[in-house]
Amino acid sequence: MANSLLCETTRGVFIISPTPFDDGGAVDRESLDSLVDFYLEAGVNGITVLGILGEAQKLSAVERQDVMTQVIRRVAGRAQVVVGASAPGTDNLVSFGRQAMDRGAAGLMIAPVSGLKTDDQIYGYWARVLEQLGPDVPVCYQDFPQSTNVVTSVAVLNRLIDNFGNLVMLKHEECPGLTKITALRQGTENGDHRRVSILVGNGGLYLPQELRRGADGAMTGFGYPEMLVQVCQKFFAGKVEQAEDLFDTYLPVLRHEQQPGFGLAIRKEILRRRGAIRTATLRHPGPMLTACDHRELDSLLARLNVRLGH
Amino acid sequence: MANSLLCETTRGVFIISPTPFDDGGAVDRESLDSLVDFYLEAGVNGITVLGILGEAQKLSAVERQDVMTQVIRRVAGRAQVVVGASAPGTDNLVSFGRQAMDRGAAGLMIAPVSGLKTDDQIYGYWARVLEQLGPDVPVCYQDFPQSTNVVTSVAVLNRLIDNFGNLVMLKHEECPGLTKITALRQGTENGDHRRVSILVGNGGLYLPQELRRGADGAMTGFGYPEMLVQVCQKFFAGKVEQAEDLFDTYLPVLRHEQQPGFGLAIRKEILRRRGAIRTATLRHPGPMLTACDHRELDSLLARLNVRLGH
Amino acid sequence: MANSLLCETTRGVFIISPTPFDDGGAVDRESLDSLVDFYLEAGVNGITVLGILGEAQKLSAVERQDVMTQVIRRVAGRAQVVVGASAPGTDNLVSFGRQAMDRGAAGLMIAPVSGLKTDDQIYGYWARVLEQLGPDVPVCYQDFPQSTNVVTSVAVLNRLIDNFGNLVMLKHEECPGLTKITALRQGTENGDHRRVSILVGNGGLYLPQELRRGADGAMTGFGYPEMLVQVCQKFFAGKVEQAEDLFDTYLPVLRHEQQPGFGLAIRKEILRRRGAIRTATLRHPGPMLTACDHRELDSLLARLNVRLGH
Amino acid sequence: MANSLLCETTRGVFIISPTPFDDGGAVDRESLDSLVDFYLEAGVNGITVLGILGEAQKLSAVERQDVMTQVIRRVAGRAQVVVGASAPGTDNLVSFGRQAMDRGAAGLMIAPVSGLKTDDQIYGYWARVLEQLGPDVPVCYQDFPQSTNVVTSVAVLNRLIDNFGNLVMLKHEECPGLTKITALRQGTENGDHRRVSILVGNGGLYLPQELRRGADGAMTGFGYPEMLVQVCQKFFAGKVEQAEDLFDTYLPVLRHEQQPGFGLAIRKEILRRRGAIRTATLRHPGPMLTACDHRELDSLLARLNVRLGH
Repeated sequence: MANSLLCETTRGVFIISPTPFDDGGAVDRESLDSLVDFYLEAGVNGITVLGILGEAQKLSAVERQDVMTQVIRRVAGRAQVVVGASAPGTDNLVSFGRQAMDRGAAGLMIAPVSGLKTDDQIYGYWARVLEQLGPDVPVCYQDFPQSTNVVTSVAVLNRLIDNFGNLVMLKHEECPGLTKITALRQGTENGDHRRVSILVGNGGLYLPQELRRGADGAMTGFGYPEMLVQVCQKFFAGKVEQAEDLFDTYLPVLRHEQQPGFGLAIRKEILRRRGAIRTATLRHPGPMLTACDHRELDSLLARLNVRLGH
Repeated sequence: MANSLLCETTRGVFIISPTPFDDGGAVDRESLDSLVDFYLEAGVNGITVLGILGEAQKLSAVERQDVMTQVIRRVAGRAQVVVGASAPGTDNLVSFGRQAMDRGAAGLMIAPVSGLKTDDQIYGYWARVLEQLGPDVPVCYQDFPQSTNVVTSVAVLNRLIDNFGNLVMLKHEECPGLTKITALRQGTENGDHRRVSILVGNGGLYLPQELRRGADGAMTGFGYPEMLVQVCQKFFAGKVEQAEDLFDTYLPVLRHEQQPGFGLAIRKEILRRRGAIRTATLRHPGPMLTACDHRELDSLLARLNVRLGH
Repeated sequence: MANSLLCETTRGVFIISPTPFDDGGAVDRESLDSLVDFYLEAGVNGITVLGILGEAQKLSAVERQDVMTQVIRRVAGRAQVVVGASAPGTDNLVSFGRQAMDRGAAGLMIAPVSGLKTDDQIYGYWARVLEQLGPDVPVCYQDFPQSTNVVTSVAVLNRLIDNFGNLVMLKHEECPGLTKITALRQGTENGDHRRVSILVGNGGLYLPQELRRGADGAMTGFGYPEMLVQVCQKFFAGKVEQAEDLFDTYLPVLRHEQQPGFGLAIRKEILRRRGAIRTATLRHPGPMLTACDHRELDSLLARLNVRLGH
Repeated sequence: MANSLLCETTRGVFIISPTPFDDGGAVDRESLDSLVDFYLEAGVNGITVLGILGEAQKLSAVERQDVMTQVIRRVAGRAQVVVGASAPGTDNLVSFGRQAMDRGAAGLMIAPVSGLKTDDQIYGYWARVLEQLGPDVPVCYQDFPQSTNVVTSVAVLNRLIDNFGNLVMLKHEECPGLTKITALRQGTENGDHRRVSILVGNGGLYLPQELRRGADGAMTGFGYPEMLVQVCQKFFAGKVEQAEDLFDTYLPVLRHEQQPGFGLAIRKEILRRRGAIRTATLRHPGPMLTACDHRELDSLLARLNVRLGH
């Protein structure tokens, strides 16, 4: 599986990985290894590095290279590694993206630059990016207007799907966005458009509904990745209500972790408590948990453990 | 209780009421009465009309007057009625607000105009509004930056609390915002600032955590207002974990209804299915449920009924 | 000319009229008459009332009716009157718009509600509005993304032009937007799309360039409307460079008046100094000139007078 | 002057330098040298590299180092070089900023990260940045909310000025912002706050007014830097009206070049036509001039030459 690539039928859970730092703020390479192991044990199908919640924008160019290389090496073919390659300049995006592919990435996750407004502006940007990357580089479109301010219509997505074979996956995060999944799937069922893989984001906040509407899984982060994995597995095994029951058990914590702009601090703390990383700090500027936040989390996790029968 | 006013110790659930329309798009006065009855039976302490989710901005001036008058009359003193009075111009805000008070409102809910950025700009706007309304008009500050783009610091809130006795309540909706509640309560506990009532919004998505941090209840909408009421009652009776258990039971539906910009269509449909209103339509422009949305809601509500043992 | 309507060949200057208030904040009806007279003497082809810079959003429903009625009556057919009818709700937009037409408006100026993002969302909104207004109501599309956050592509405009005969005019204010004028005019020259009138906004900051690209004039405000009128007249008489010379003479003042969010205070003060209105105040919330602002304006206007040879 | 640093009394014109690219999109090192020479001949006091309009965000880390190094070397002490060091992560900002100072920069230009809203959030961010850089690194605060969405009050600026001696300069670009200059200068005249240098941006669109209010010059770009230089020199020599006369002569072109998000393409083309650089292209994504844009520029520059008597 080492060099397998993302494709239109890719399914399952691609976990968005945070970047662990030590107390001095350096990338904690030991924790990065243990975090990869933690994710693999949870059964994820892939690991996505250098996303927004991986604090990629706060890493230096060298650090980005190092994180990507280390994760790909540690994973050692046991899962696919997707590399975040969004960049303000297209040339840098492409050269970094090609490096990532050369080192063994399964594909690139790219969000459009902010400032694109009309359908034609969005299409034009992507046409250039997809063309310059070339047909051999599989791309996952991060559709996350809450962060980029770029709202992509189904019409634009379908134009891109029709014209660029290397657009193979949508990281679906527009919210509300349930109807968008349905519209994309109908375009395929009608025979009008090629199918692409749809993995959902937003911490999985609507995962059961999204799976029912045709999503192939999730590309998102959560302190309990095993839940995402099992929900998808149960769902694809036809145990739809059981999948949702499991999801609902974790929902109070998931909703807490999904607070915009703050959730990453909670996620890292959960990962720290679970032994996946050694330190929960974010790089500046970023939120920090107070003593009150910690006690609140104690209470929420204790409640989860009761519900899980732990 | 008829003419009682909002005050710093007001507690409980103030339900944000939608405005029901008939198939032709007119305000459905019969449904407005039945909706009030439905809320009173659920045990709410207050009803807030003419908020953003009451589609106030799509009502004519005459309709706003009529809705407010009818609800106050129907409630007939069995709960407090808060009237949304936000307006782009301060003079109109004040004259409408005074009318509302004259007709029996318990207070006004006001969100700042968008475009205010710095602490001094925000303070200056409110100083003018609170002064012009006068000391006898109790005001609930709708702190909802997701809609207004105005982010109000704790420092500004405390300056306003210190200087304007008619600011008696905060409708807390900044998200993430748990720390803000704690900071405000500490200001009171330290003896530095007057206490105000804090009711939370955002559909109650974080209600148990917010109550634990010192909130006095909720001023928000939800298709199952009785849950909000019971969670608050249990919490204030010291049954904290039971309150949260009940909340968690409804959380899958609450999260679904809380989709930004879309949730009101779901909320109205739930209210329709429960017999509270006759028609679920919103005025244009506004979202409309598809057949697929309806089936999804069927499934979510069926799951809720199972969990409730219905 | 009294009841003549806007059409695809409408040309010249439609001045965006502020609403004058007296010191107490009431609409100053006497100043409204003198302002109309001032504009007619300047030679404008039309007057547009109840726009954003007419502080329409800070007027009550009754005041909006009164302002529109008074201006139409005072103009008495000597120019066309366009009425701003933008509203958050489509039903109110339509009923107010029809009233305006009944009272003698030449057409409606409408800006889309904010929140529309994709091409289809924008088209869908307008399709509903234009259909509901009906084929007999000529509409001017206020294309002003700096205020509405709605960016309308040439493709969407052309779809609307093709499908709705009552869309007869574009108030062009996207900035940068020179290319947009050229693209629209090429669509007409190619025979692909109906011609519409294009009047430009932004205080006329790019007026000579816009006329050269095919604009039909300006629909904007400026303390010296006679300049806008003469520039257009000279331009259409073929005296292109003379038109631009005249424009450049006023450009230092025009640029000063065009400061976003502040310029209306300057414009009203210029109008006051010129005797067009009695008081320069805006309604709250709005900017107010300081003593320093006044001295600065003294200096700029003195320089203008020198250049004009006064 | 080679290693002189920015300070509170720095005065004159610091030109914001674009980054020239060749037809293949690589940094054009030959043009970078000729551009530096062009600026020095125009008499600028400083050159600012790696700003937003230097397309810094589209350069790789290595390219940023190279551009900075080359410009500092070419300038060879004949002017000060300010280096743009804004970055999403504070650690990278600081390490890059220190490198720049080690190589001979006179100071750093920094804009705050977007997402900061309240006074305390903005102050807190800057306190960390200024502290981490240390007292020996002079900082120019780029106050440009049109790009960053961060609106900084005079109160916050004064708190920072009082507490951090290394904040020595404000690049003033808030618009409208004339009152802000006056308020800052009054704080100094009253003896309440340390004086800092204020250089203005926005292409110099309001330069004469800003100088009259106490600005020390401009830190901005324009295809005719000699105008900015001469306006400042005349102004500081007491020839205030002559300074403004000269400014007004260039204003039609300046206003054209100042179109937001598009002006850089015009600026580069003017620099190309004047022989300062060989190629006018921007990196993708970025605007490109059409044939129509070129003809329009022909006309505007011809008019300028007539007015200059060339």
